[in-house]
Amino acid sequence: MQSDNKTAAILVIGDEILSGRTREGNAHHLASVLTAVGIDLREIRVVADEQPLIVEAIRALDSSLGGRYDLLFTSGGIGPTHDDVTADSVAEAFGTGIEMNEEALAVMRARWEARGMPVTGNRMRMARIPLGAKLIPNKFSAAPGFHLGNTYVMAGVPEVFRAMVDAILPDLPTGRPVVSESIDVNRGESDVAEDLQQVALAYPDLSLGSYPWHREGSYGTMLVVRGLDGARVAAAMTDLRQRIGL
Amino acid sequence: MQSDNKTAAILVIGDEILSGRTREGNAHHLASVLTAVGIDLREIRVVADEQPLIVEAIRALDSSLGGRYDLLFTSGGIGPTHDDVTADSVAEAFGTGIEMNEEALAVMRARWEARGMPVTGNRMRMARIPLGAKLIPNKFSAAPGFHLGNTYVMAGVPEVFRAMVDAILPDLPTGRPVVSESIDVNRGESDVAEDLQQVALAYPDLSLGSYPWHREGSYGTMLVVRGLDGARVAAAMTDLRQRIGL
Repeated sequence: MQSDNKTAAILVIGDEILSGRTREGNAHHLASVLTAVGIDLREIRVVADEQPLIVEAIRALDSSLGGRYDLLFTSGGIGPTHDDVTADSVAEAFGTGIEMNEEALAVMRARWEARGMPVTGNRMRMARIPLGAKLIPNKFSAAPGFHLGNTYVMAGVPEVFRAMVDAILPDLPTGRPVVSESIDVNRGESDVAEDLQQVALAYPDLSLGSYPWHREGSYGTMLVVRGLDGARVAAAMTDLRQRIGL
Repeated sequence: MQSDNKTAAILVIGDEILSGRTREGNAHHLASVLTAVGIDLREIRVVADEQPLIVEAIRALDSSLGGRYDLLFTSGGIGPTHDDVTADSVAEAFGTGIEMNEEALAVMRARWEARGMPVTGNRMRMARIPLGAKLIPNKFSAAPGFHLGNTYVMAGVPEVFRAMVDAILPDLPTGRPVVSESIDVNRGESDVAEDLQQVALAYPDLSLGSYPWHREGSYGTMLVVRGLDGARVAAAMTDLRQRIGL
């Protein structure tokens, strides 16, 4: 399936995902959002909370640094603790400095004062933002994300990540949304493979996928047709149904 | 946290993950297993069902091909349909051929005959295995995975993936398992950041992490200490509790 839609990658920064402690959910959420607005997510990477690894991944993935994709979204590593090294990593990847950002600090101070929370050095650490970056507001807990080059840096806490995705969405270069139709058949994947391939050959502009499932001794296959033209997707699905005899 | 443990990456092959249709779970399962047996998972990548992307990722991640990690585990793309291109991609990455594997075919035929299922070309496609690879048995549905170089190629269907992980586990170069202890505190992450950092400095051989959470208007932070020496982990956790006043 070719399109003029922008391409994207997601970089998840988090030891807790790699240790199996936490099941990743932010990339899954953003994947659905990007599909809905016509941005083509091409890769997800998860790396540890280590600056050299994060710098290398950002450079490999952000086209403004010679990387592969039009847009890069990161999740995690922008909290107040010693192992939150994402902001420093982004500054290093872009070859820019990092400083206390007055705009970020003002937003955060306002929230702390409203709640009677002391302003500590560790809290202030979250206002350290690479030079030249634009802030991403955080309605949930104030400490902002930021946007530099083609990279959008967001928090790992799921509620905050979602709030930041909502905040950047109006400004993203959206495209033609992918349309998909699916049917669930009570057959093994290999029983429908030939029909699926024939339809795939007849509709080279579409993407056809098959996903076998097993539940409580029963099994079947979900067949999915995806594309940018809803009429073509519907035609391919009609063809597929007829071939399979549904 | 440095160790002599082997390093590993997981490569997930699947458009359905990138479109947001399916939430990835195989990497999460394997991450827990690897942590338990002392293999250091360093990276997870998700790429689309496209041969050039898969070939490039395998070469980047498998040390036997000049890649970065001691071990590589893949999930997905070894079914019977036209978009299952993982086996061909592995053959290309290793510069070897791919042929119908008699051992794989015999296992699959035996299962099909026992169930009265016809032997079709599409079913037989799952017996195409790169030359030189060793099969990974599949107790769930017969079609095997395989092992070539330092790469272990497994199915994407969760039940099959888990069966294959169970099958390879006895042969993996396991190491010292990571020991972890955690405490949940009713404080914001920035309130405990200073104490956490002091303990991290005092125990450079350990890995300390903090994971803020929010639920129904309440919030807190999970503090995790990880390392290879259980006594050191326990000592660091005692130190951390004292500093925080727990």
